[in-house]
Amino acid sequence: MPSRKEFLKTMACLAAGAGLGLDVMARSNARPAPFHINRSGMGARMKMRFFPYELKLRHVFTVASYSRSTTPDIQVEIEYDGVTGYGEASMPPYLQHELGSPESVTAFLKKVQGIIGGFDDPFKLEEILARIDSLSDGDAAGKAAVDIALHDLAGKLLGAPWFRIWGLDKDKAPSTTFTIGIDKPEVVREKTRECAGRFNILKVKLGGEDDKRMIETIRSVTELPIAVDANQGWADRRQALDMILWLKDQGVMMVEQPMPKQRYDDMAWVTQHSPLPVFADEAVQRLADVPSMKGLYSGINIKLMKCTGMREAWKMLTLARALGMKVMVGCMTETSCACSAAAQLSPAVDFADLDGNLLIANDRFRGMEVVGGKITLPDRPGIGVELLEERK
Amino acid sequence: MPSRKEFLKTMACLAAGAGLGLDVMARSNARPAPFHINRSGMGARMKMRFFPYELKLRHVFTVASYSRSTTPDIQVEIEYDGVTGYGEASMPPYLQHELGSPESVTAFLKKVQGIIGGFDDPFKLEEILARIDSLSDGDAAGKAAVDIALHDLAGKLLGAPWFRIWGLDKDKAPSTTFTIGIDKPEVVREKTRECAGRFNILKVKLGGEDDKRMIETIRSVTELPIAVDANQGWADRRQALDMILWLKDQGVMMVEQPMPKQRYDDMAWVTQHSPLPVFADEAVQRLADVPSMKGLYSGINIKLMKCTGMREAWKMLTLARALGMKVMVGCMTETSCACSAAAQLSPAVDFADLDGNLLIANDRFRGMEVVGGKITLPDRPGIGVELLEERK
Repeated sequence: MPSRKEFLKTMACLAAGAGLGLDVMARSNARPAPFHINRSGMGARMKMRFFPYELKLRHVFTVASYSRSTTPDIQVEIEYDGVTGYGEASMPPYLQHELGSPESVTAFLKKVQGIIGGFDDPFKLEEILARIDSLSDGDAAGKAAVDIALHDLAGKLLGAPWFRIWGLDKDKAPSTTFTIGIDKPEVVREKTRECAGRFNILKVKLGGEDDKRMIETIRSVTELPIAVDANQGWADRRQALDMILWLKDQGVMMVEQPMPKQRYDDMAWVTQHSPLPVFADEAVQRLADVPSMKGLYSGINIKLMKCTGMREAWKMLTLARALGMKVMVGCMTETSCACSAAAQLSPAVDFADLDGNLLIANDRFRGMEVVGGKITLPDRPGIGVELLEERK
Repeated sequence: MPSRKEFLKTMACLAAGAGLGLDVMARSNARPAPFHINRSGMGARMKMRFFPYELKLRHVFTVASYSRSTTPDIQVEIEYDGVTGYGEASMPPYLQHELGSPESVTAFLKKVQGIIGGFDDPFKLEEILARIDSLSDGDAAGKAAVDIALHDLAGKLLGAPWFRIWGLDKDKAPSTTFTIGIDKPEVVREKTRECAGRFNILKVKLGGEDDKRMIETIRSVTELPIAVDANQGWADRRQALDMILWLKDQGVMMVEQPMPKQRYDDMAWVTQHSPLPVFADEAVQRLADVPSMKGLYSGINIKLMKCTGMREAWKMLTLARALGMKVMVGCMTETSCACSAAAQLSPAVDFADLDGNLLIANDRFRGMEVVGGKITLPDRPGIGVELLEERK
């Protein structure tokens, strides 16, 4: 049986012979005939490689007591029959207890290589990912990296981006929020002015002493809608609801994680009384956490690095919708690889917070883009990314 | 831009010119190159047609007070850019209050034609199916027919069967149950003897006076595992649990719908005390019903005709798993079209009851097959069916 490469070579010869450049077909809308009944590439094996890739932040990132200018990251590539799927694990230091550290994820990925190398069919995602998940209790970012690379590969083999495979309409992708960092008023004003022209909804991290001043500073410059992430910062139900009521009057659209995640009764009360949708972030990590969110929050924030990847993210979305809950999709500082993977879900969510790739200076990929503030998905297959340059 | 037909024609010319028959490529394992980045067939429109197709039963079907030798059915075909997707609505008379009648489904499908004709992209499944669902409160079988045809079409356009798109391993498909009808002991013995060579698990509908005698008659012939469908037939928790305990000793593996569906407290008690998994059938129809099944039953029976099709079925499976519940997939008397669509899910379920196509004498399709008792999925794309003959 001719391999894919031989097939392409034959095609190229034939095309050249007939004076028809292959690139003409590439740009054309031609579809494969439905006679391709088996794409398993019988006999081929998957091969995985990975390497550390330190993300350089465009601006020093400061939360509370600490600041940093880089994020540790590991890039994953899974190759099968000449096609490469890309994935990544981003591990911001303050989340490594949940996502895994560069050391633990490296050790984890070494074990994954053996499993990946044993499969000759990248489409057995359910079984492959279950095996990988069982290797370790944590290392969610490492699991996400493998899941994203496998989805990129499978989508490329199908010749379609995941938003299409999932049956979504890319025109329904929402605007992304963009975070305005807490800073001196003149800096916040300057930053807000800059962003107001590029984004349709801003995000602010609150939960401190200066919450109201921060919102008022932004409002002195723009009337754009705002999303608030309180990062568990408000102490009790009374403070949380008072803040939410005040924020609503300031044109805030939604609030993430108003109180410490273990304040279950308070959260249920706040959600019940809140005029704004309230999203679980720290309170929810994986699929198994979702059912217990019902009644406590209006919705959940799904992040690939926390939930182990696209397959579980899609299940969480399905489950949340079935429970009548809202959904948002978020990210870490990460390249356009993981951001574009998350963006595939975005036509099905209420809010998207996918600005992670805009925060780094050394993106390896071109993928989803923000155009007029809106998430814009490429038609490229898989997660929709192209490599910008070879590994340095 | 060249259309798919032009592309194929060009390919055929090139292939002929190089002395390479197209059928060689057809049989080869060649995959489309990943440069096919957009398969929307811009400008093309979907076209839907449908026609009644009375299913002729191989044997007269008898339940309680009534018997019949046919099942009303409507076949649906959706064409897009030269590719046809197949679907069907099976409407057994005793379920028409839930599934729709031939008359209501015909009226419903006429309305669907207008919607389908307005879409130029069959991959916008989420939006298309939501629009169709909102056309009518009932007509679940009509909705399923359209959903199946759209999935068959989308799978063919992707060049892959749905079990692969869903990430499942077809080798994990279970054995199907096959129903032994209630009859005189000598007939039951004869029937059981016949089936014991072809199936690995039998199904018996109980819930009457002669439950124990029926099981004993089967056991006089074979030790094969048995699945029991009580069809709401046992009156209360005591009778239900006593029967389940007795059935367990007879080598029964699971029980469907032991009591009337509205006996919530009794069901919760029986499920809690039952040594066998207990499945909801009459109690569950669609996705929205699933969360309330948790605690009342161990699992749910998903049937495409009831739940409006493959997309909702997949969501129900995802939801049930997330709630820690078991899943089985069932069917009506129907052709290999709907049965093969349901079979795509089967590698992910605990039990499968997909014998509907074996019960009819005028199947239009070749699709999933039962080989050595096990559901065997073809590698053909979409739902995996081929038309056996042209419409008569």
